[in-house]
Amino acid sequence: MDGHEQTAYDRGVTVFSPDGRLYQVEYAREAVTRGQPVVGVTHGDGVVLAANGTRRSPLQEPDSIEKLHAVDDHVGVATAGHVADARRLVDQARVTAQRERLRYGEPMAVEALAKSLADAVQETTQTGGARPFGAALLVAGVDENGPALYEVDPSGTPTAWRATAVGGDGTLIDHLETEYADELDESAAVDTALGAIRESTEADLSAVNLDIATVTADGYDALSRDERRDAVGS
Amino acid sequence: MDGHEQTAYDRGVTVFSPDGRLYQVEYAREAVTRGQPVVGVTHGDGVVLAANGTRRSPLQEPDSIEKLHAVDDHVGVATAGHVADARRLVDQARVTAQRERLRYGEPMAVEALAKSLADAVQETTQTGGARPFGAALLVAGVDENGPALYEVDPSGTPTAWRATAVGGDGTLIDHLETEYADELDESAAVDTALGAIRESTEADLSAVNLDIATVTADGYDALSRDERRDAVGS
Amino acid sequence: MDGHEQTAYDRGVTVFSPDGRLYQVEYAREAVTRGQPVVGVTHGDGVVLAANGTRRSPLQEPDSIEKLHAVDDHVGVATAGHVADARRLVDQARVTAQRERLRYGEPMAVEALAKSLADAVQETTQTGGARPFGAALLVAGVDENGPALYEVDPSGTPTAWRATAVGGDGTLIDHLETEYADELDESAAVDTALGAIRESTEADLSAVNLDIATVTADGYDALSRDERRDAVGS
Amino acid sequence: MDGHEQTAYDRGVTVFSPDGRLYQVEYAREAVTRGQPVVGVTHGDGVVLAANGTRRSPLQEPDSIEKLHAVDDHVGVATAGHVADARRLVDQARVTAQRERLRYGEPMAVEALAKSLADAVQETTQTGGARPFGAALLVAGVDENGPALYEVDPSGTPTAWRATAVGGDGTLIDHLETEYADELDESAAVDTALGAIRESTEADLSAVNLDIATVTADGYDALSRDERRDAVGS
Amino acid sequence: MDGHEQTAYDRGVTVFSPDGRLYQVEYAREAVTRGQPVVGVTHGDGVVLAANGTRRSPLQEPDSIEKLHAVDDHVGVATAGHVADARRLVDQARVTAQRERLRYGEPMAVEALAKSLADAVQETTQTGGARPFGAALLVAGVDENGPALYEVDPSGTPTAWRATAVGGDGTLIDHLETEYADELDESAAVDTALGAIRESTEADLSAVNLDIATVTADGYDALSRDERRDAVGS
Amino acid sequence: MDGHEQTAYDRGVTVFSPDGRLYQVEYAREAVTRGQPVVGVTHGDGVVLAANGTRRSPLQEPDSIEKLHAVDDHVGVATAGHVADARRLVDQARVTAQRERLRYGEPMAVEALAKSLADAVQETTQTGGARPFGAALLVAGVDENGPALYEVDPSGTPTAWRATAVGGDGTLIDHLETEYADELDESAAVDTALGAIRESTEADLSAVNLDIATVTADGYDALSRDERRDAVGS
Amino acid sequence: MDGHEQTAYDRGVTVFSPDGRLYQVEYAREAVTRGQPVVGVTHGDGVVLAANGTRRSPLQEPDSIEKLHAVDDHVGVATAGHVADARRLVDQARVTAQRERLRYGEPMAVEALAKSLADAVQETTQTGGARPFGAALLVAGVDENGPALYEVDPSGTPTAWRATAVGGDGTLIDHLETEYADELDESAAVDTALGAIRESTEADLSAVNLDIATVTADGYDALSRDERRDAVGS
Repeated sequence: MDGHEQTAYDRGVTVFSPDGRLYQVEYAREAVTRGQPVVGVTHGDGVVLAANGTRRSPLQEPDSIEKLHAVDDHVGVATAGHVADARRLVDQARVTAQRERLRYGEPMAVEALAKSLADAVQETTQTGGARPFGAALLVAGVDENGPALYEVDPSGTPTAWRATAVGGDGTLIDHLETEYADELDESAAVDTALGAIRESTEADLSAVNLDIATVTADGYDALSRDERRDAVGS
Repeated sequence: MDGHEQTAYDRGVTVFSPDGRLYQVEYAREAVTRGQPVVGVTHGDGVVLAANGTRRSPLQEPDSIEKLHAVDDHVGVATAGHVADARRLVDQARVTAQRERLRYGEPMAVEALAKSLADAVQETTQTGGARPFGAALLVAGVDENGPALYEVDPSGTPTAWRATAVGGDGTLIDHLETEYADELDESAAVDTALGAIRESTEADLSAVNLDIATVTADGYDALSRDERRDAVGS
Repeated sequence: MDGHEQTAYDRGVTVFSPDGRLYQVEYAREAVTRGQPVVGVTHGDGVVLAANGTRRSPLQEPDSIEKLHAVDDHVGVATAGHVADARRLVDQARVTAQRERLRYGEPMAVEALAKSLADAVQETTQTGGARPFGAALLVAGVDENGPALYEVDPSGTPTAWRATAVGGDGTLIDHLETEYADELDESAAVDTALGAIRESTEADLSAVNLDIATVTADGYDALSRDERRDAVGS
Repeated sequence: MDGHEQTAYDRGVTVFSPDGRLYQVEYAREAVTRGQPVVGVTHGDGVVLAANGTRRSPLQEPDSIEKLHAVDDHVGVATAGHVADARRLVDQARVTAQRERLRYGEPMAVEALAKSLADAVQETTQTGGARPFGAALLVAGVDENGPALYEVDPSGTPTAWRATAVGGDGTLIDHLETEYADELDESAAVDTALGAIRESTEADLSAVNLDIATVTADGYDALSRDERRDAVGS
Repeated sequence: MDGHEQTAYDRGVTVFSPDGRLYQVEYAREAVTRGQPVVGVTHGDGVVLAANGTRRSPLQEPDSIEKLHAVDDHVGVATAGHVADARRLVDQARVTAQRERLRYGEPMAVEALAKSLADAVQETTQTGGARPFGAALLVAGVDENGPALYEVDPSGTPTAWRATAVGGDGTLIDHLETEYADELDESAAVDTALGAIRESTEADLSAVNLDIATVTADGYDALSRDERRDAVGS
Repeated sequence: MDGHEQTAYDRGVTVFSPDGRLYQVEYAREAVTRGQPVVGVTHGDGVVLAANGTRRSPLQEPDSIEKLHAVDDHVGVATAGHVADARRLVDQARVTAQRERLRYGEPMAVEALAKSLADAVQETTQTGGARPFGAALLVAGVDENGPALYEVDPSGTPTAWRATAVGGDGTLIDHLETEYADELDESAAVDTALGAIRESTEADLSAVNLDIATVTADGYDALSRDERRDAVGS
Repeated sequence: MDGHEQTAYDRGVTVFSPDGRLYQVEYAREAVTRGQPVVGVTHGDGVVLAANGTRRSPLQEPDSIEKLHAVDDHVGVATAGHVADARRLVDQARVTAQRERLRYGEPMAVEALAKSLADAVQETTQTGGARPFGAALLVAGVDENGPALYEVDPSGTPTAWRATAVGGDGTLIDHLETEYADELDESAAVDTALGAIRESTEADLSAVNLDIATVTADGYDALSRDERRDAVGS
């Protein structure tokens, strides 16, 4: 199909192209690729999330570039892509987790939360009056079934991973496929995550720009700058 | 009709082409064809569903690529095509089956469930404000009338089969037409289903990527990896 | 009007062409023509409906290709065209007939039912937000006024017939005009209907693919495969 | 204005062309012209309506081609143009007349009924979301003010006539202008009406295809086939 | 701006052209110009309205071409342009006048009624989902402030006049500007109005086609055919 | 940007052009420029408003061309641009002022009224389904803070002025910038306002066409024709 | 992508371009760049906001060009871009802050207020029926966590800064990056802010056109003209 015909199918979200594709969803995926990458790595006791957020200026408060978000005691979310879209999904994740906890008196399963978010994302790809979300999520948590790491992409598909990355190009997943091992402890998981991020940037990793969070049975924990400095140095 | 004129009718779901076709529905069928195939085979005591889900990466949890879904004790659904669309239909199947069971105190007939899903799919092809579902379903179950296997396609048409496949090209149905026999037992039905899947892929079947489920009067049963390994080896 | 100008009027249902035509309705009629034909023949005691549904594959359950539908004790509906659209109209016919029976304690008149369906079809041709139905119906029944056979076409026009066909080309009606006689009994009516269907296909009629139903004062009756075999052989 | 520019104004009902015309309304009038003509003729004691409905096939029930409709005891409506659209307006006429009778305990004035229908038709020419009605009506009745005959056209304009026709070309009105006389009795009014219809067809008038109705102080009366045969023969 | 660019701004009512014009409103004014003219002339004791409605056929009831309408005891409305649109505005005038009279126990001021109609017309020029009214009104009445004559144009602007005309070309207003005098009595006002109408037609004025109405402190009065014959002859 | 590309952004109100402009708002401003100018001048004790409304014909009632409007005892509004749009805003101003007075028992502050109107205007520039108002307002009043003069433009921006004009070209403001002095009394303010209007017209000012109003602590006062004649002569 | 193709994606807010961008949001950012700059600088005890609003005319009341707005006792907002859009966001900020204070009995956290505004802005970029806001905000305040300065951009992204500017080109941020120091007191923060504004204009700063506000634990304070004169002179 030449360029002119393609444009016939990709302007409105509610139409398929002749080869059965939804261009608007694929363009939303492109918005994710343009974003800075975030990485999730499961290990025996939990999940590690890491992100590298370059500031637009040294005057920007480094902590205000939120790429990792505590969603509930036992769940965190990392986001890549269009920042404002991602914030909306994170808000929805918090509301959903809290509502479930109130209703049933216990924390929401990580898989259930990831699927609930995926449902909301799918809705925007089928029903008129809105565009898809230009953001992808990593939902990381520990529940009765142990550690869990889910990706939710702009089509609204949830998938479970031992380790993965969203945002940036394919080099991060290549690194993870090579380096990930099943018998990691948390410290090694952090190293693996940072190693993947190192692949995606030419600059040295800096504790200021990095965000690292761990989720274990003890809950969600955002590493302090000192802890991050240790992690980068290790 | 040349390429330019065709585009006049296929962008919006609510119009017919001069030859009485609904292009958006046909493009949604194309999305199904692009998907990985799923197979259903009835036998004397029930129905077998099988799917072969290739992972995007060895890091992806193989169990998280859901192509077979328990919908109620006595019904399972296999899906092909756009994954997020398929999930929405599976959710609807579960809600419908549960609501019927609560209302009437007994399990919903498989035919009734398939037709209810088909109604919802048809709605998206006629009413504005949404696109069709880019997914097809196999609804398999055992009820008072014995084993039943239904296909629901993107036009919203339900059809009953002794054995069929959705997703992938026509080679699977060719295989089933040749190999299917009326006097199968469950084990032979599994073999027939796997044989069809083998036709559609150049790689060897692997217990990791395969999903196999059986529905009998005893209920829906997803085979464990060991059981799948036995099935592939047999 | 040349091809380019025509396309200006036929994309949206809510506009007339300069010569006062509604192209979307005419294209929906085309969808009916593409469908497999169904035939209705009235006789002294009732109405006969017949349809010939070719299966996509020998694995498809022949009974699941529904072209004839019991709507109430005394009324049946035959459909041609877009299958999923037709199912929706049949559902509506059943709901309407049942509601009327509950409200007034007696069966709905066949003419009233046909006109109620026609109203619903017309609505889709005038009001925005939906496309016309790509299906035509034959509504056949016996009520206080005796046997009645109505056609409802995609424009929403109801018309009464002694014998007619929808779907397929004009050869069926030509056959009926030649062969139909006023003094038919049920058996002769079945012969006349099958004769028309024979005109529309090059293959021999087979009891497996045929559907035949009779409506008399005793109610709607779908012929069994044995009865159909007898009918074809006669 | 050349052909290309014209198309800029005639696709949507809610816009005027630069010369102040509403093309969609004019195209709806074209749909009326394409329809079979109906004629109304007032006389000293009432109004006569006549229509000539050619059947699509000898198998079609002649009485099912409704072009004349009893709306209330004292009012009938004749319709030309798009049949399904006309049916909807007739339904509305019946509901309106009945509601008024219930509310005020007396029959609705013919002028009031015609204007109420005209209001509904005008609405479709100004408000978005629907197309105009492709049908025109003759509303004929007898009320406190004596016999009355109104035309309602697709723009929603009501006009009163001593005799007129809608549908078909201008030859019918030419005939009426020549032949209509103020001192007609009912029988002469029928002759005048049939004379106009004869002008519009090359075939002989046949009692089977004709519809004739009279409205007098005694009410609406559809002539039987024998009465019609007499009228044609006279 | 050339012809092609102009079309970019005049198809939808909700946009301005680059030079700040609303083309749809200007085209609606064109619909008024195409209509037959109506004239209003104030005099010491009231207002005179006159209209000349040519019949489409001698069979049309002359009184059914309504161009002058009694709206309340003390107010009449004359209309030019699209007849069905004008009827809707007249209906609204009647409802508004009656509602005000009920609410406040006294007749509505002529200016207030004209402005209320203008508000309704303006609404259609700014809010989506409808087209402007293709009609202009003369609102004539006598209230506490004496005689008043208002024009409401398709933009929704009300203006007060001693004498004016809507519909037809500018020759009527030219005539009025020359002939109107402040010291007219009703008879002279009628003459002035008919003089303007004579300017706009090549045919002689005929009492059959003319409509003349007077509004004074004694109320709205439509002249009988005899009175009109006298007026034309005078 | 050439002419063709520009048209891509200026047809719908809800889009920005690539250089961050809202063309529909700018075209609405053009409608204001096409209108006859109105001037406001503050002085020590109040505000003077003046307008020069040319009549379309000597038969038009000069007082009916309303460009100055009493909105409340202490506030007047002058309007330029599309007359029907301006009337709608004046209505809204009156309703708003009255509602506030009822709610709080005291007159609404001039600034608050101007901002409330600006909010309503902004809404039409951002939300779909309507076009912007093609009118600008001068809101003039005296409240607890003394005299105040606000402009509300088609973008919905309110600004406060010592003296300004809307409608017509820039020569009026040039005149005001040269001639305005802080120590004016009301009479000198009237002179300054009329001087600006003289700049914008080649004809002599006439008391008939002029509108002049003053707002002081004593309220809104529209000058009589005699007073206007004095003002022009002075 | 050439100019023609680009236009395919940037006219409606609800679509992504093939490279994953939302052009309408980028064009709204352009509207901000066209606006006059505002600057925010945090210091040990609070935040300083400064803006330089050039008047369109010396007759314009300088205080009526509002670029700095008290939102609550402890929070101020500075705005750049489309003035009318900015006013709407400021109104929303005030309503939100007041509602929170009423609900919880204590002032709203600055971060929470900035994020609430960002949510409202994001909504306009994803849901149909509205365009994005053509304005950016600086939200400055002091709460339990000390001084805080947030930017909200047209995509709906909130970010925290020690010092930043919105509106105008990049020279202001360059200046701030060079001159900002962590150990500023309020007076030095004012100097830094004014220094940045000086970079963006060729004219001398004037107390008349400048707006300066400080937020400390003691609340929001807009500097008087004398104080501003001192600041410019210092």
